[in-house]
Amino acid sequence: MSYIQQSFSVQFEYKVFFTEKIFDTANTDFANFLESRAEKGIRKKLLFIVDDGVTKHHDYLQDQITAYFENIDGFELIQDIIVVPGGEASKNDLQLFYWLVNTLDQHAIDRHSYVVGIGGGSVLDLVGYVAAVSHRGVKHIRIPTTVLSQNDSGVGVKNGINYHGKKNFLGTFAPPAAVFNDATFLATLDERDWRSGMVEAVKVALIKDAGFFDWMESHAGLLTQADPASLQYLIRRCAELHMAHIGGAGDPFESGSSRPLDFGHWSAHKLEQLTDFELRHGEAVSIGIALDSVYSWLTGMLDADSLDRIIKLLKELRLPLYHPLLEIEDDQSAIVAGLEEFREHLGGQLTISLLRAIGKGQEVHSIDLAILRKAVNMLRDKW
Amino acid sequence: MSYIQQSFSVQFEYKVFFTEKIFDTANTDFANFLESRAEKGIRKKLLFIVDDGVTKHHDYLQDQITAYFENIDGFELIQDIIVVPGGEASKNDLQLFYWLVNTLDQHAIDRHSYVVGIGGGSVLDLVGYVAAVSHRGVKHIRIPTTVLSQNDSGVGVKNGINYHGKKNFLGTFAPPAAVFNDATFLATLDERDWRSGMVEAVKVALIKDAGFFDWMESHAGLLTQADPASLQYLIRRCAELHMAHIGGAGDPFESGSSRPLDFGHWSAHKLEQLTDFELRHGEAVSIGIALDSVYSWLTGMLDADSLDRIIKLLKELRLPLYHPLLEIEDDQSAIVAGLEEFREHLGGQLTISLLRAIGKGQEVHSIDLAILRKAVNMLRDKW
Ligand SMILES: NC(=O)c1ccc[n+]([C@@H]2O[C@H](COP(=O)([O-])OP(=O)(O)OC[C@H]3O[C@@H](n4cnc5c(N)ncnc54)[C@H](O)[C@@H]3O)[C@@H](O)[C@H]2O)c1
Ligand SMILES: NC(=O)c1ccc[n+]([C@@H]2O[C@H](COP(=O)([O-])OP(=O)(O)OC[C@H]3O[C@@H](n4cnc5c(N)ncnc54)[C@H](O)[C@@H]3O)[C@@H](O)[C@H]2O)c1
Ligand SMILES: [Zn+2]
Ligand SMILES: [Zn+2]
Repeated sequence: MSYIQQSFSVQFEYKVFFTEKIFDTANTDFANFLESRAEKGIRKKLLFIVDDGVTKHHDYLQDQITAYFENIDGFELIQDIIVVPGGEASKNDLQLFYWLVNTLDQHAIDRHSYVVGIGGGSVLDLVGYVAAVSHRGVKHIRIPTTVLSQNDSGVGVKNGINYHGKKNFLGTFAPPAAVFNDATFLATLDERDWRSGMVEAVKVALIKDAGFFDWMESHAGLLTQADPASLQYLIRRCAELHMAHIGGAGDPFESGSSRPLDFGHWSAHKLEQLTDFELRHGEAVSIGIALDSVYSWLTGMLDADSLDRIIKLLKELRLPLYHPLLEIEDDQSAIVAGLEEFREHLGGQLTISLLRAIGKGQEVHSIDLAILRKAVNMLRDKW
Repeated sequence: MSYIQQSFSVQFEYKVFFTEKIFDTANTDFANFLESRAEKGIRKKLLFIVDDGVTKHHDYLQDQITAYFENIDGFELIQDIIVVPGGEASKNDLQLFYWLVNTLDQHAIDRHSYVVGIGGGSVLDLVGYVAAVSHRGVKHIRIPTTVLSQNDSGVGVKNGINYHGKKNFLGTFAPPAAVFNDATFLATLDERDWRSGMVEAVKVALIKDAGFFDWMESHAGLLTQADPASLQYLIRRCAELHMAHIGGAGDPFESGSSRPLDFGHWSAHKLEQLTDFELRHGEAVSIGIALDSVYSWLTGMLDADSLDRIIKLLKELRLPLYHPLLEIEDDQSAIVAGLEEFREHLGGQLTISLLRAIGKGQEVHSIDLAILRKAVNMLRDKW
């Protein structure tokens, strides 16, 4: 047997900037980034695709972006800003996906051009996927506008859309060219949206950073009032922890089965689907965290005091702990099917993150359904 | 301005094996590869998707594969082998793409499972794209069955489908888990297919390896008779040169505009489209090589003797030098539009590979249309 060996590595780099009023002419962050990417003799295009939840509250955006680009050389703004419906629905609509692909084609967006997505995690996931597969990958810039997308989904390397009711069935790993977290956008979020966005911070603190969890406990009051400075700190630390894991754990494109950042997510994904996305992602994850924390305690992995602190913080942040669709009647119950679906999406062996302590995740490879049912019932009856 | 820096690199490795009768039970190459990927406690699935041009001539394949897997542990063969229409048409059919995505879903192919594509470059491009975006990327193995796919398309890192008449408009860069070049399949190729598959060898020799070009000149007679040993050497050297470029030139996922391996391809892509894929890829590239070689000579870059040798070799290999749709009436001519489309697909500045000598490519950033027209007319009238 004879063979040729192929072997190479690809380096990926990007920055996540923290800024305000990004397209105010006085703010040079975005312009500086573009300048750093300018190349002599190449006129690069930028196509903006914006979440309608953003344009609704920031109707100055089109004019502001147009004005901003008047002073930028070497880049060509596609004048019409594309507006797409926001929220999970945008990821369920294959026609919208192809409409965007066609839009890239019509504007002759090439591999040196940039597709800029402005919006929540849903729109960014959709736009990222469009960019990743058009011309085998055009560059994309993300401007996340929700707490969740600024602290988690928008700063990572994944994109995707739902297919046949399966969450993120189609997608790729495709690092962005840059991310700009603009605090200004957060002011117009629904209470439900910014509140549920904080859940990813609770999640990542629980598996990786006890000190961050302490900080959230002591700032819970400020956080529920959406105190801007507290929210900024939460977003930044949460983004940092996510990015450190992606860049530092040796498996940025998730070829293994280990997914600690998916703590609390196996049941959450199923609940989102079962409620037809009535539950926000963060709300579902809050329930998922509560469930897996109680389960960790019931199996003796986590102590009672830690469990109390977790439940207390979620309640103080006014995040949900339970949903009737969690109910386990028998092994055929929907939420049990979620376990297998989670395994399948990750592939390989079932791998579920649980807690050994606050700040310390631990993976297990099987779930005892009787104990899981007990955990569900406790969440229903006890708090 | 404050920011978080992300930075990581991803290592990619795969082997291209050379073998015969791959699913004969006596051949352990494929089994050995699987064994090297076995993991305790994980049962990995294999889903086979096969080009109907292959099954037509190798109707034993389904039975042979089934028998082969009887002795393999830790892997589960999905019993039904999926057969898809071969040829470029398979890349034009979005419904076929989704039918395959659904098939992966139905068989619960997860990220530790393998999708095995057996077929020509077209089917492999389609199957590779399906695998690359399902669950954000399931593993795939390629078994190329044409000269072109064994020496070029199947050993590289790209996949894709055509969209809205634009070649490879949708696709990704996704290295395979392994490639198996099985010489047995080549025996049943149409003469047109194996002959046109040799063009990529002429191409890569011209830009990178004068010695290989010499070898082809001295073996032209044997090659036109499809002498197995000569064909094997040609395929292996061609694959090696392609792989060395992908792995060694510092830009495996083509983020820059430089694409020496696309020598002869700018006009070829357009000719394929203009002839509605009546021309084989290799035939179109042969014409494209002839065109860009004559152009190189007309601009003084290449000497007359080298040009003669190139034209002579293409003719000896019975490859075409001209097609009426090449004709340039004026700046609006279709083939001229192909230049801009080529630039757009690569992005950035127009970058065309020409020749300084046999074995030495050289990039230029503009094309003189008057000289190009002269080159077309020479190809029409002179040889
Ligand atoms: N790619 C990843 O790594 C990753 C990680 C976690 C979550 N996600 C995905 O992110 C999605 C959830 O994202 P999300 O929580 O940001 O919600 P979302 O994108 O669904 O947006 C929620 C709502 O807020 C609106 N909105 C957005 N920005 C606004 C603003 N500034 N002011 C007012 N309204 C605004 C939207 O129009 C929408 O109606 C899910 O699809 C989830 O799967 C992806
Ligand atoms: N991904 C890449 O990097 C890359 C590079 C170069 C070309 N390509 C693509 O490859 C495609 C061309 O591939 P191709 O030249 O292999 O042709 P092809 O895949 O179009 O196949 C040509 C014909 O041969 C038949 N066939 C395949 N194997 C056979 C066998 N063993 N015996 C008999 N018939 C057989 C097919 O059914 C088809 O009818 C084009 O779409 C081109 O764009 C891709
Ligand atoms: Zn999440
Ligand atoms: Zn080619």
